Amino acid sequence: MTDYQHLLVTRAGGTARITMNRPARRNSLSEDHLRELLAAVTEVGGTDATGIVLAAEGPVFSAGHDFGDVAARDLPGVRALLGLCTELMRTLHEVPQVVVARVHALATAAGCQLVASCDLAVAADTAGFALPGGRGGWFCHTPAVPVARSIGRKRLMELALTGDPIDARTALDWGLVNRVVPAAELDAAVDDLLARATRGSRASKALGKRTLYAQLDRPEADAYALAVEVMAAASQLPGAREGMASFLEKRHPVWTD
Amino acid sequence: MTDYQHLLVTRAGGTARITMNRPARRNSLSEDHLRELLAAVTEVGGTDATGIVLAAEGPVFSAGHDFGDVAARDLPGVRALLGLCTELMRTLHEVPQVVVARVHALATAAGCQLVASCDLAVAADTAGFALPGGRGGWFCHTPAVPVARSIGRKRLMELALTGDPIDARTALDWGLVNRVVPAAELDAAVDDLLARATRGSRASKALGKRTLYAQLDRPEADAYALAVEVMAAASQLPGAREGMASFLEKRHPVWTD
Amino acid sequence: MTDYQHLLVTRAGGTARITMNRPARRNSLSEDHLRELLAAVTEVGGTDATGIVLAAEGPVFSAGHDFGDVAARDLPGVRALLGLCTELMRTLHEVPQVVVARVHALATAAGCQLVASCDLAVAADTAGFALPGGRGGWFCHTPAVPVARSIGRKRLMELALTGDPIDARTALDWGLVNRVVPAAELDAAVDDLLARATRGSRASKALGKRTLYAQLDRPEADAYALAVEVMAAASQLPGAREGMASFLEKRHPVWTD
Repeated sequence: MTDYQHLLVTRAGGTARITMNRPARRNSLSEDHLRELLAAVTEVGGTDATGIVLAAEGPVFSAGHDFGDVAARDLPGVRALLGLCTELMRTLHEVPQVVVARVHALATAAGCQLVASCDLAVAADTAGFALPGGRGGWFCHTPAVPVARSIGRKRLMELALTGDPIDARTALDWGLVNRVVPAAELDAAVDDLLARATRGSRASKALGKRTLYAQLDRPEADAYALAVEVMAAASQLPGAREGMASFLEKRHPVWTD
Repeated sequence: MTDYQHLLVTRAGGTARITMNRPARRNSLSEDHLRELLAAVTEVGGTDATGIVLAAEGPVFSAGHDFGDVAARDLPGVRALLGLCTELMRTLHEVPQVVVARVHALATAAGCQLVASCDLAVAADTAGFALPGGRGGWFCHTPAVPVARSIGRKRLMELALTGDPIDARTALDWGLVNRVVPAAELDAAVDDLLARATRGSRASKALGKRTLYAQLDRPEADAYALAVEVMAAASQLPGAREGMASFLEKRHPVWTD
Repeated sequence: MTDYQHLLVTRAGGTARITMNRPARRNSLSEDHLRELLAAVTEVGGTDATGIVLAAEGPVFSAGHDFGDVAARDLPGVRALLGLCTELMRTLHEVPQVVVARVHALATAAGCQLVASCDLAVAADTAGFALPGGRGGWFCHTPAVPVARSIGRKRLMELALTGDPIDARTALDWGLVNRVVPAAELDAAVDDLLARATRGSRASKALGKRTLYAQLDRPEADAYALAVEVMAAASQLPGAREGMASFLEKRHPVWTD
């Protein structure tokens, strides 16, 4: 793997772990940090890894944009920064791997957006989530986009307008994360969920993940028009063929793609 | 009623019950089974029934598509099968009756899609729900369409990517079903919910149900544009006229449509 | 403030309170009442208030449309009435203030729609919520629009098709309200939530609120296209500048807009 200045990128078995490692800056997302995250997710996306864990070092998961890197920018400069940030979020949806956020601490603003943009999320009971633009001056317009698509509207309004954090249990109740566990059990819970989410044909799962994001937030008829065509095509691929054959022949499947 | 090979179709009072009765095949949805379900829902849809219960016999509610009927098909063949399946789901939304799924056991893949596509669902505590394509080769692209529109995004991702079942309580918590009761109380709970959901003018309810599905998953302004026009027109229909007149005259309404 | 026949409109600090005060008619929404609500929300929207509380006097929060004002109308007449009602709901989204519903009692039909259309809602444990068109003749087509965007699909179907009320705890569990408290604590809970939701730059919050509603219920890519542009532009405004500067300078912010 490439060397990164702000990240630790490791590989163990089928899982690549991308760890934000800028704890002194609370893993705030400067342009450099965003560029490295996008490069790392893209790089890992091109490997044969089946899963990605997005983790962080230090007392904060991520504090969102680095105001030191925003305050001096003019409109085109901020637009470019937010475009880069959005490209990172989109790439998390487009890589073939299942992406799990491992949230051990506070995730705010674009840090909360990162969690909402991962396919799955496991939080320690020490985690928290906030859209703090609601407390101050720069409203969390873009972080609210994936958060709105994970939780209900009244809860979104509360998070976005108050800026106050919710704890991990509330995030679980609202559907922002999939699991909450004691901090000591966080890695085991991430590993368990990722192992279950990466079984089977890798190609089939990758197509599945992309199609899920493509069909969401559309009228049902539009979603079906897409899903029927993808699922029909998928039935002809090696993964589906082997899945059905092994079931009918009452044997364990052997995945080749 | 027509005789069906794979279904039991009965009528008691205003309620038609369609029971999948292919227990030896775990009520898997072969083309023949899908054709019969579509025919039965369409047939009952044309009667004066006010409610439909979709039930199943045997140890499994429905295991989804019958791999024995899929594995040998080419792309056009699978596309046609999925088109038929989608037409069944759409027809459940379009019939004038309120449709309640009575889920006593495991509902997986297109079986889970059936539950998500019924207007309401009552589950026994012995029920379970899964999108098992996530465990293997043929991803549950189309079953995920109505499931995505019933539960939150992170929960959808977990169901679809892991393929693991959730129990009835979790399904209730996530909003995939409306009630969970002990198995012995399942019929009573279905009857109670359906009785409450079929009161009033049948024509008014039928228009209401169709309009709900038409306005969902659209920007709010588009939804209002539709709902205002439908509700204004509905105010002129006998059901609305009688509803308002009986209220203003402090008497019980008498529904004629 | 203007004098209103059916409303009490008061101002205390940054908060304007609009109280429906037609208890003998259960705060039903006649054309006159709707016109006054729209006028009052619009009037307050043009002031420097930072928050609006929508409250009600009497045993019912609001019973929805006044059938005495609907029953005699022809199609164009009802269309005009529903258009006025929809304009009120839209205006609640468009005013720069954060709007909190203070729900002390039953809110039904367009009364429930009012609650769903406020940005936030706090309910007493004596409150209840219903779409009673499902029990009778005139289906709650338009009230279901914002309710559908606050709660899940199966729960919407249950509310809309049965017409039966849910209690405040269920409304909280489903995400229709943000808080439920004993009746005696209702005002304190409203004040607390509103205080937290109105901190910071007023202009920033107003833009934030409008953008949230604009990006909801759209495919994620469309939502990002809007949110990136708004957030980039917002970074150049006084609120964002001061928010970032005060953070970087480790001082309390001073909001000028």
